[in-house]
Amino acid sequence: KTDIDCLTSQRVVRLPGLIDVHVHLREPGATHKEDFSSGTAAALAGGVTMVLVMPNTNPSVTDRTTLSLIQKLAKTGARCDYGLYVGASSDNATVLPSLAQEVVGVKMYLNDTYSTLKLNDITYWMKHFENWPESMPICVHAEKKLTAAVLLVAELYKRSVHICHVSCKEEILLIKAAKEQGMPVTCEVAPHHLFLTKSDLEKIGMTFGQVRPMLGDEEDQQSLWDNIDIIDCFATDHAPHAVEEKQSANPPPGYPGLETMLPLLLTAVNQGRLTIDDIISRLYTNPKRIFNLPDQPDTYLEVDLDHKWTIPKAMTFTRSKWTPFEGHEVQGIVRRVVLRGEVAYIDGQILIAPGFGKDIKTFDSKTLVENITPLSPCHLLSPSHRNSTSS
Amino acid sequence: KTDIDCLTSQRVVRLPGLIDVHVHLREPGATHKEDFSSGTAAALAGGVTMVLVMPNTNPSVTDRTTLSLIQKLAKTGARCDYGLYVGASSDNATVLPSLAQEVVGVKMYLNDTYSTLKLNDITYWMKHFENWPESMPICVHAEKKLTAAVLLVAELYKRSVHICHVSCKEEILLIKAAKEQGMPVTCEVAPHHLFLTKSDLEKIGMTFGQVRPMLGDEEDQQSLWDNIDIIDCFATDHAPHAVEEKQSANPPPGYPGLETMLPLLLTAVNQGRLTIDDIISRLYTNPKRIFNLPDQPDTYLEVDLDHKWTIPKAMTFTRSKWTPFEGHEVQGIVRRVVLRGEVAYIDGQILIAPGFGKDIKTFDSKTLVENITPLSPCHLLSPSHRNSTSS
Ligand SMILES: [Zn+2]
Ligand SMILES: [Zn+2]
Ligand SMILES: [Zn+2]
Ligand SMILES: [Zn+2]
Ligand SMILES: [Zn+2]
Ligand SMILES: [Zn+2]
Ligand SMILES: [Zn+2]
Ligand SMILES: [Zn+2]
Repeated sequence: KTDIDCLTSQRVVRLPGLIDVHVHLREPGATHKEDFSSGTAAALAGGVTMVLVMPNTNPSVTDRTTLSLIQKLAKTGARCDYGLYVGASSDNATVLPSLAQEVVGVKMYLNDTYSTLKLNDITYWMKHFENWPESMPICVHAEKKLTAAVLLVAELYKRSVHICHVSCKEEILLIKAAKEQGMPVTCEVAPHHLFLTKSDLEKIGMTFGQVRPMLGDEEDQQSLWDNIDIIDCFATDHAPHAVEEKQSANPPPGYPGLETMLPLLLTAVNQGRLTIDDIISRLYTNPKRIFNLPDQPDTYLEVDLDHKWTIPKAMTFTRSKWTPFEGHEVQGIVRRVVLRGEVAYIDGQILIAPGFGKDIKTFDSKTLVENITPLSPCHLLSPSHRNSTSS
Repeated sequence: KTDIDCLTSQRVVRLPGLIDVHVHLREPGATHKEDFSSGTAAALAGGVTMVLVMPNTNPSVTDRTTLSLIQKLAKTGARCDYGLYVGASSDNATVLPSLAQEVVGVKMYLNDTYSTLKLNDITYWMKHFENWPESMPICVHAEKKLTAAVLLVAELYKRSVHICHVSCKEEILLIKAAKEQGMPVTCEVAPHHLFLTKSDLEKIGMTFGQVRPMLGDEEDQQSLWDNIDIIDCFATDHAPHAVEEKQSANPPPGYPGLETMLPLLLTAVNQGRLTIDDIISRLYTNPKRIFNLPDQPDTYLEVDLDHKWTIPKAMTFTRSKWTPFEGHEVQGIVRRVVLRGEVAYIDGQILIAPGFGKDIKTFDSKTLVENITPLSPCHLLSPSHRNSTSS
């Protein structure tokens, strides 16, 4: 690496291990796209120490058998910690509650996307809202008008709902209005909707560019930045596909994102568009609260806020060998990641093996925590403590 | 008429003048399809003495100028009494409130249908909910998921909303759930969704059969009958088009319905699927309450519950010379209609002229009511008082 800036300036900041509440790791069923090992390596390289894993695999995670299967694969393959989602289908509303204690939430697909789990009828949505345990999150892929529709169903059942990958003005203003009325809605925004628009499709290409929700226009993008206070979480919606698939006539929707999210967000911090505390709340504090996630003791990262680099054609660890952010100039890089006391990543190297990652639903927090000093949930070093430690 | 049944049996029932809250009379702009004179003649022949007239004319009724235009045309042309709607557009949310006192409500088109008024963005819906006077109805064409979406917006603004032409299971069950939660939603169902299904399209033909919402399947139809208590109004959605238009390659959606609604409903009464009181509440009491409509003094109809006939190829008074109910065997017919003391219709003859009909927003209820004995809002004779008066 040519790293001239580091010779003259270096602000290293310590952050809590980040939590990405929305990733697709493609195992079981499509390990040529990604698997637990490659996907969680990408997570660690991106400063993410806990991933919540979507259920639209093959088979989908919709019952005891498929949950057991993915639990086994995750246990063997994951390098970072993880939680699993189950997927709502038209006929499993009464089955899912028995699995609730082993997962972080249920995912409902209300639009067409890369999934076989689409719920076509509101009466199916209602059955899930009626049956799923009240204390457990319901996450929805619900674009545009469907955001409003699912908020109504949540209101009918007096429940909270988490809106995945909010991407446009209509959605964020509606969620804002719902929050103002006291409705218990939370939401996440993906980096590609914050940092890309339709106008980038020219560069990305129309087949690679496919993603759901699609990229918005400048007004949509600006509305997300204008309403950053409404956004509870940033989440990658890491959706890896093989390059051959993305350039095919019928390309599957989705972008890889785990290795690029934090550098893009740190660049926004450097530009004054975000603060470090914004990142911590959207990728640590709020995810923990919304999904009731345990502490990861002695877990943190060190990022260099000054390191400037250009996002390459493809990132190192994801199996999806392209990125929509190719060519973006960023400032900020992950230097070191410590996960439960072990150095998991340092300067481009993954140092922990598949199987080190734990299912957060099996955490015995007492054993894990009692021998160590808890880490402050906030950053330990911030831009206001500039030019301190590390090198 | 061969009228053998009348020789042996005749139950004549007096009903209040019916109110159809959803008709399209096509004037201005498409008087080859219908106009105030022909459409209100069809209304009277169907036992409807008051029509609420939709604003998707050409031009649409969206401002002072177009409202004045339709007011003038209606005043000259209407034979029965009427109220007018204004239409919500993407840029008239702040203009409409100044017209509210002259109309019965605002209509919002949230789906594609025979209208140029579609509101594409929820932020437009919100502007109308925010600005339209709280005491005045908001009526929406909002199919399937959009029913839920608009209920959410209504909830955000703590307002009631009237859902037009509920047509499927998903919608009626959602409205049921919303009513159970105490939300102030009302709804209407059109006769064609009660009495026809997709399977009738074979007979009707795919071009004539176009209507929005489309005909449902048997399960949808059954759900409407099973939830008849949830249905506040019956309304024709009388949407006349010329036969040449309906048989064209790109047929406009819509069925004529004013002359066939009551016979179809009376047939259901004869079959024990409805009561006369169901008809009165859905076509008189509830419309009056929901739309805050004045009394029509000395206004009533007499229907013969025993008269059996077959719906012909086309009805008499609408300019739309076809009907989707052709060939339906019905039992029940309108004999006589009295509107504000005048016999308006008797046995196939319209006896009042264009211009007799009044805009209900110009009713001086005091002058109109003081000299006459008010009619009971309920039926005067019911099947429980069978084989009584008349001949
Ligand atoms: Zn999604
Ligand atoms: Zn996703
Ligand atoms: Zn550097
Ligand atoms: Zn801080
Ligand atoms: Zn409509
Ligand atoms: Zn209509
Ligand atoms: Zn007869
Ligand atoms: Zn009665």
